[in-house]
Amino acid sequence: MFGYMGKILRVDLTNGTITEESLKEEDCKMFLGGSGLATKYLFDEVPKGTDPLGPDNELIFMTGPLTGTESPSAGRYCVVTKSPLTGFWGEANSGGSWGVYLKNSGFDGVIFSGISSKPVYLAIDDGKAELRDAAHLWGKGVSETDRLIKEELGEDCNVATIGIAGENLVRYAAIINDVHRAAGRCGVGMVMGAKRLKAVAARGTQEIKIANNDVFSEISKRNYDLVNESMMKITFETYGTAMVADLVNVRGGFPTRNWQTGVYPDVDKISGITLESTLLVDRKHCYACPISCARVSVVKSGPYACKGEGPEFETVGAFGAMCALESLEAITLAHNLCDDYGLDVVSTGSTIAFAMECYEKGILTSADTDGLELRFGDADVVIQLIHKIARREGIGDLLAEGTKRMAARLDKGAEAFAMHVKGLELPAYDPRAAKICGLAFATANRGGDHITAYIEGPSFIDIPFLCVEDSRIEDSMVENPAEAKVVKDLEDALTVFDCVGTCKFMGMAMATEDWVDMLANCLGWEFTVGDFRQAGERVYNLARAFNVREGLTRADDALPRRLLEEPLPEGPAEGHKVEKLDQMLDAYYEFRGWDKKTGKPMPEKLRELGLDYVVDKI
Amino acid sequence: MFGYMGKILRVDLTNGTITEESLKEEDCKMFLGGSGLATKYLFDEVPKGTDPLGPDNELIFMTGPLTGTESPSAGRYCVVTKSPLTGFWGEANSGGSWGVYLKNSGFDGVIFSGISSKPVYLAIDDGKAELRDAAHLWGKGVSETDRLIKEELGEDCNVATIGIAGENLVRYAAIINDVHRAAGRCGVGMVMGAKRLKAVAARGTQEIKIANNDVFSEISKRNYDLVNESMMKITFETYGTAMVADLVNVRGGFPTRNWQTGVYPDVDKISGITLESTLLVDRKHCYACPISCARVSVVKSGPYACKGEGPEFETVGAFGAMCALESLEAITLAHNLCDDYGLDVVSTGSTIAFAMECYEKGILTSADTDGLELRFGDADVVIQLIHKIARREGIGDLLAEGTKRMAARLDKGAEAFAMHVKGLELPAYDPRAAKICGLAFATANRGGDHITAYIEGPSFIDIPFLCVEDSRIEDSMVENPAEAKVVKDLEDALTVFDCVGTCKFMGMAMATEDWVDMLANCLGWEFTVGDFRQAGERVYNLARAFNVREGLTRADDALPRRLLEEPLPEGPAEGHKVEKLDQMLDAYYEFRGWDKKTGKPMPEKLRELGLDYVVDKI
Repeated sequence: MFGYMGKILRVDLTNGTITEESLKEEDCKMFLGGSGLATKYLFDEVPKGTDPLGPDNELIFMTGPLTGTESPSAGRYCVVTKSPLTGFWGEANSGGSWGVYLKNSGFDGVIFSGISSKPVYLAIDDGKAELRDAAHLWGKGVSETDRLIKEELGEDCNVATIGIAGENLVRYAAIINDVHRAAGRCGVGMVMGAKRLKAVAARGTQEIKIANNDVFSEISKRNYDLVNESMMKITFETYGTAMVADLVNVRGGFPTRNWQTGVYPDVDKISGITLESTLLVDRKHCYACPISCARVSVVKSGPYACKGEGPEFETVGAFGAMCALESLEAITLAHNLCDDYGLDVVSTGSTIAFAMECYEKGILTSADTDGLELRFGDADVVIQLIHKIARREGIGDLLAEGTKRMAARLDKGAEAFAMHVKGLELPAYDPRAAKICGLAFATANRGGDHITAYIEGPSFIDIPFLCVEDSRIEDSMVENPAEAKVVKDLEDALTVFDCVGTCKFMGMAMATEDWVDMLANCLGWEFTVGDFRQAGERVYNLARAFNVREGLTRADDALPRRLLEEPLPEGPAEGHKVEKLDQMLDAYYEFRGWDKKTGKPMPEKLRELGLDYVVDKI
Repeated sequence: MFGYMGKILRVDLTNGTITEESLKEEDCKMFLGGSGLATKYLFDEVPKGTDPLGPDNELIFMTGPLTGTESPSAGRYCVVTKSPLTGFWGEANSGGSWGVYLKNSGFDGVIFSGISSKPVYLAIDDGKAELRDAAHLWGKGVSETDRLIKEELGEDCNVATIGIAGENLVRYAAIINDVHRAAGRCGVGMVMGAKRLKAVAARGTQEIKIANNDVFSEISKRNYDLVNESMMKITFETYGTAMVADLVNVRGGFPTRNWQTGVYPDVDKISGITLESTLLVDRKHCYACPISCARVSVVKSGPYACKGEGPEFETVGAFGAMCALESLEAITLAHNLCDDYGLDVVSTGSTIAFAMECYEKGILTSADTDGLELRFGDADVVIQLIHKIARREGIGDLLAEGTKRMAARLDKGAEAFAMHVKGLELPAYDPRAAKICGLAFATANRGGDHITAYIEGPSFIDIPFLCVEDSRIEDSMVENPAEAKVVKDLEDALTVFDCVGTCKFMGMAMATEDWVDMLANCLGWEFTVGDFRQAGERVYNLARAFNVREGLTRADDALPRRLLEEPLPEGPAEGHKVEKLDQMLDAYYEFRGWDKKTGKPMPEKLRELGLDYVVDKI
């Protein structure tokens, strides 16, 4: 099979068995690979009501047909599981080059089930795999684990691992590869910790076969060059994603002090532009990516001294504006601690910000917080809380549960400002300043997320997407139900990127037709623009069906009360709140072919997408 | 009148009289100001068949209602005249701050007519104006003239002047203000030289009245902030416009060796990115502009040693790729020589490139060229030719006539590769690599020009325009007649920017609605999006009517034969040429309401635009 290695590994951690299994070509044609194929396995194999931390949950690592090819930015893999944070379909996605190493080891993916009795890690070496003891790795941070595994297996392997946050079952623990690239969201690292699986290391020299290599290579190179000369590349390479902080703040939608306002007065101290002239020492890129948005940073001395990567936009959002830190050095340390502990920066920073507002309002007091004063702006407190969360120590044990569960436990009105959707903490874009983003947060399958539709691109930061017919948002301050179609189109199109193994930034830069040509020539299939769009819609609906089977209803496609009830108090979006979520949802369900009452995909829609077998299951 | 000073100066150079004249509010409402108002004067006062160099031609300097306000990048003025290069409506536009000084001196514009018997310059000082002797300035370069006038009038004035190219009647001489900002195109500097007008200096402290200053200021500041945080700003500030060279070259449309190919192998040596890391010492911005795209550069030593500004994209296009120079130092010197001589860089570089191909093909020989070998890539020859052109010395006398007249004089088949439209040399975007640009070159009122529609933004470099309803180009390699509407819409909308006194880059960054609100609150008018669009269309049609009256027909909306007959020989656009110009023109005339046979605006269209009085005149 062109583009694929043709087989996956199944690892039953309960009894330690490893088997190989061929990919079904029919499934590949329907779900492409990556997130799509993984969702198919999850839907078929993880029954309704499965405990996310129990043996029946699966943790699925999957690459796509483009992963490891010369297609631009095709270095990605995804992890799909039932999320312990949301209770729904969970997915996290990462770059770097681990996915490429897995593929070169001879496998398109690995499905873990069961629970190991003791810590283990999986070593895959050029077509062979074994579970190895991880007792000596347990309790170790990400960089140390990476180092130790490379000592054992050789420098030429690549390691995806949890830090101690995953071991300690922090609900938003991440899986980290290449020491600093995070499959961050939905608590995939917690599931890995619960399975007592410390890491997956891969290496190999297997070749990925391309159907029409000359044409594929020509399209790849041409588009690499195009992206390489684009303004997006130049900007992100120069200043990193953290420069987006300025773009979002200037519109008054940069969530500050746990979303109490959308204007962060100290944004200039923490933006990518400041980073570039202060802590930045180098830039890095993921496999085959022209952009190089990754930062290598050093804080030379002082209380926040560290050396590592980041911060990215979501770090300066979550720790900077949300917690009101003005020290870029502290934010950089926070980022690196999250990487080494294996924590999702968005959920970590957001949960701390939420705790700070609870403290401000007297819902939490020093009696609850090990004596810490959880005041906005206190960088030392933020750093201490990260340590405590990763270790589930003292107040960290409560914060490790995430915003939704914290709010439920604390009660006392905390739910009113608990900023999550479906249990997933929100990224640093306030929909009160770009309304359509609210719909996207509400509908994303994995919970409050920006990357599912990335409607923030066209609405917040004026980057259109070339991978859909029309991504324009006329006036981002107006809620226009007709624009729900853009959310749907982007959700579907960007799902394809998670399936084929490519960074979604490429969806901004390359036209659909080029993607279609590239996939057709990689895979040796007849493949049309219609196939491209339908594949995305099919996978999106299957993930939705998984959620519906788990009990999701229209009521879960919701937004935090603050966004609906509290107008922004200042700035360009002053006085604005999200007001038409219901009308937007109606329009969205209509475009989707979903029942407006229940939010369920209609049988006709599922059949149209070739998902007949799903109809009876939801 | 809000936004205006309310009066203009009329200077009759023949008899040395200066009179003041009130603006007619009715004309302002119809034509807004700047290029629009100037075109109205030109159409009404310069009769058919007027000799561009004769006393009946007018040279009109005009600001717009936003010029000098705090609206983003509102520092522009324009010069309108009958062009000696094209014989049609001529316009050139410049930034810096001269327009602001003129307005603060108490006048919205100055109309020069007649011819002075001896060199003079106009000094405007806070409401008063006088013609002063310029004998001591004649023969001086731009920077020296600027210095000498400031010695006389004081440092707090601003000078727009010609260099010796204008004095020597080089057909593409420019007018330069702020020493380095050029009203470059159409030979406006030649008209100024023919009038023996060396310079216009202005200063003053008159206040521009704004109707609703609080609202105007709020919209201005908000949009300034938005642009200030945009990717466009960050990119252009960091690397200058010369970075576009990479973007155009990667699409195979960077005209090289007089448009013999669209791929310039040495682009990396001359791009804005290289400039930034080599010669750049500072950045500058025009009045009230957040972008700072201007470059301050120094070549420290060697044969090309110089200190000044630039180079811009069109300089690296015209002198770099078109003449095949790989020395950024030589290109920088060429740019600074053009500034000081007062030459349009596009026409200068293009005409030299044309001469080089004539030499390559034996149409010019060393016997014609004062012994110079006009070989592509020879930087020393290019520098020598610039000196010769400005002085009309030897072969420079022929080159000073521009490509069209050179081709006619040389004959011998040179017309086949004479790259101009209506006599105006083309900018550095090859329409064979982005087809819609060909239509825009063909239709632009001032001749082969990119800035009239700036369709290169959406088609070549992926920058959409927010100031039109829809600026998308689906596939820039396909000629789609339906997209002629985008050209029309952009021509109309961007004409408004030339009328109100704002840089067209702002049309990429701010929505129409904000412009409309800003204008309404500046002017105290009811002003709608419809008014905005119609004003642009009205001015565009009036300039067209001027051209029609001068004898323009559909046959003048043409492209150089090379673009229609010679496919690009290599690169991403290999094999492509412009093939459907006729169909594109048909569609364009249809959208415009112009007669498809003659290209004349139909009476109904003129009446719809309130130009009833024009109907009988064309």
